Amino acid sequence: MQARLDLKRPEPVAVPKPSQAEALDALRLARSRNVGPSTWVRLVRRFGSPARALEALPDLAGRGGAAGVTVASIGQAEREVEAGAAAGATLLVWGRAGYPAALARIPDPPPVLWVRGDPAALSRPSIAIVGARNASAVGLRMARALAADLGRQCLWTVSGLARGVDGAAHDAALSVADEGGGTVAAVAGCVRDVYPSDHAALAERIAQAGAVVSEAPIGLAPQGRHFPRRNRVIAGLSRAVILIEAAARSGSLITADFALEQGREVLAVPGSPLDPRSEGGNALIRQGATLVRHVDDVIEALEAAASTVLDDPDAATGLPAPQAEAPGLAEPDAPFARSPLSAAPDDAALRARIRDLLGLAPVEEDELARLSGAPLSALADVLLELELAGRLDRRPGGLVALLPE
Amino acid sequence: MQARLDLKRPEPVAVPKPSQAEALDALRLARSRNVGPSTWVRLVRRFGSPARALEALPDLAGRGGAAGVTVASIGQAEREVEAGAAAGATLLVWGRAGYPAALARIPDPPPVLWVRGDPAALSRPSIAIVGARNASAVGLRMARALAADLGRQCLWTVSGLARGVDGAAHDAALSVADEGGGTVAAVAGCVRDVYPSDHAALAERIAQAGAVVSEAPIGLAPQGRHFPRRNRVIAGLSRAVILIEAAARSGSLITADFALEQGREVLAVPGSPLDPRSEGGNALIRQGATLVRHVDDVIEALEAAASTVLDDPDAATGLPAPQAEAPGLAEPDAPFARSPLSAAPDDAALRARIRDLLGLAPVEEDELARLSGAPLSALADVLLELELAGRLDRRPGGLVALLPE
Repeated sequence: MQARLDLKRPEPVAVPKPSQAEALDALRLARSRNVGPSTWVRLVRRFGSPARALEALPDLAGRGGAAGVTVASIGQAEREVEAGAAAGATLLVWGRAGYPAALARIPDPPPVLWVRGDPAALSRPSIAIVGARNASAVGLRMARALAADLGRQCLWTVSGLARGVDGAAHDAALSVADEGGGTVAAVAGCVRDVYPSDHAALAERIAQAGAVVSEAPIGLAPQGRHFPRRNRVIAGLSRAVILIEAAARSGSLITADFALEQGREVLAVPGSPLDPRSEGGNALIRQGATLVRHVDDVIEALEAAASTVLDDPDAATGLPAPQAEAPGLAEPDAPFARSPLSAAPDDAALRARIRDLLGLAPVEEDELARLSGAPLSALADVLLELELAGRLDRRPGGLVALLPE
Repeated sequence: MQARLDLKRPEPVAVPKPSQAEALDALRLARSRNVGPSTWVRLVRRFGSPARALEALPDLAGRGGAAGVTVASIGQAEREVEAGAAAGATLLVWGRAGYPAALARIPDPPPVLWVRGDPAALSRPSIAIVGARNASAVGLRMARALAADLGRQCLWTVSGLARGVDGAAHDAALSVADEGGGTVAAVAGCVRDVYPSDHAALAERIAQAGAVVSEAPIGLAPQGRHFPRRNRVIAGLSRAVILIEAAARSGSLITADFALEQGREVLAVPGSPLDPRSEGGNALIRQGATLVRHVDDVIEALEAAASTVLDDPDAATGLPAPQAEAPGLAEPDAPFARSPLSAAPDDAALRARIRDLLGLAPVEEDELARLSGAPLSALADVLLELELAGRLDRRPGGLVALLPE
């Protein structure tokens, strides 16, 4: 039995904004020191809402060993909301209506998203097309052909607004808007001042017909370290990532890595081994990525992926099962699912035991639980405290280490 | 545990010619009407030697329904041997010393081979490199680079002496002769008058340093139908076939099909999907062929193949197990392994029953045995008779049908 993807019927998505108060709390928590995306989600799951997490923050960080904790002020959050409104952007909050379900399922989803354009565009069935800035004419032709042909099948294109493959894919997807196509740009800087600036007009067209999205505060200029983080959003919004012309160690390969980590399909267009721009794609194909020649190969890969998860209630979306208990789309201000309290706040002996076990060399959380004799939930609390105090380094694969002081 | 290929140590191969009498018998049988390669092997296995098979031929064909049987004359065989000697060519006979072991194992090995150059070259560890006649500059560079780099690893290149990829691969392999490299050309016509004629000088250089080989009689000009047959020899002499730039439905894809049928590795160099010359290779990669970027990928594939057959006594050669009971390298005039006699020559009822069951639509031999109630060995005899009478069509996968009269 072959599961057919029903691509023609996008689900209707209502997009109520989070309440003003909750939006401010979510932003404050997201902009507080040592609160990265996965910590934000951990805190909200642990305490039930951004507001309660904010209340708990100083104590937690103190127990982790921080002298003082830098919680973002209400004023800072209000200024960000005003700037967003002035830029015509909408704020989406993880776990709240309007936040794209596919992105909510990745291991470290952005707590907040600023969107210029239609937030519902983020929930369209989409495919990421990424590749080299210095793409060849042939690479650009492939990007255009795939984006347009996917659009005609009502599959939107997600990309990163960069020069080269990204720009060609966005533009071609826009060109088939009247046939069902469209596009979303996930940018590394803020959604108001797009980078590169010579793509400002393209970004405007994308915002008119689709969406430009970023987790960055309005006004943030992108720095090098923002681009890899942005790539996890590109993959997270998509059912599959297609790589076109990517050199070894390029950003596009990082996007492919995120896609694998997120359980999304990875596809690549091959090229001559004598062209360095083919290195990334050819290497991925050797590692098991699907070789793509034309749109039919993409559809076939999506159908195959859907048929392998037939027993899964999420099969219809072609998306992997949620990570842990990702919340559904709740109404604003409804409580989030909460973990029970576990480590007594005053269990100093347990804290000391766990801290003594930690060093600069990464160790598995499971191993730490075994060695300390602590229940996993209590261990998680202590690690959260250390994280908020800026003393814990989380690595992929559930590894943790102390940061050098 | 990883099996390492010991490529540096080619086995010493003694190359005694078959006796003059046996060579003549082998040639007569091979040139007789309705005796193709698989029938030649079937007859020699059934009767123990080419001489005995020749004796049995008229009776067998008569029982199969032939009015008369055309057995090649001693004079015709003598003239072929003289022409071969005049061309400086050596005759190898299947099952006899000097015949390359890898080729002996394929389902339909050539009964006889004419070789110009060193017959021992055919027993070298070799890789086939095949591809488009109208290859691009990039394709030709890949062919040259792979052939030369394989040669430096003491892996010889087998190809078909055609223009384009074939010629580039032969030439590059010759260029590293002093580093361990070399090459074998398997041609569709005879080894004396090579095609294309503008590769005559290249063929001469190959014969000097390696070997030019063909199953065709001296003097035969190649026709279209000879090229696919030649491709099975290219694959059969090789541990793996590398495809470089092959359009859909090209001869190179036929070589890849033979390689799969023979249990040899299939590898392909990728290219842009926008270039029709990449179609064949990209399609093969999607079907599971190994994507090749450089010589290391080829070595890795050979090692992986060797490690999967570790339990097999043939693992050291990287070759699949012999088809049925392919004979070892026997001394000239020693009897071949013989099947016991099965169908009594006068069992007319059995013959009639089997013939009645056969029609123009192909049927499996096993099914035929079940329906007729005949033992498999008796059925094989009756089918052999029909084949020699020119009334049987053998298809891949053990299917047989009557030929229209």
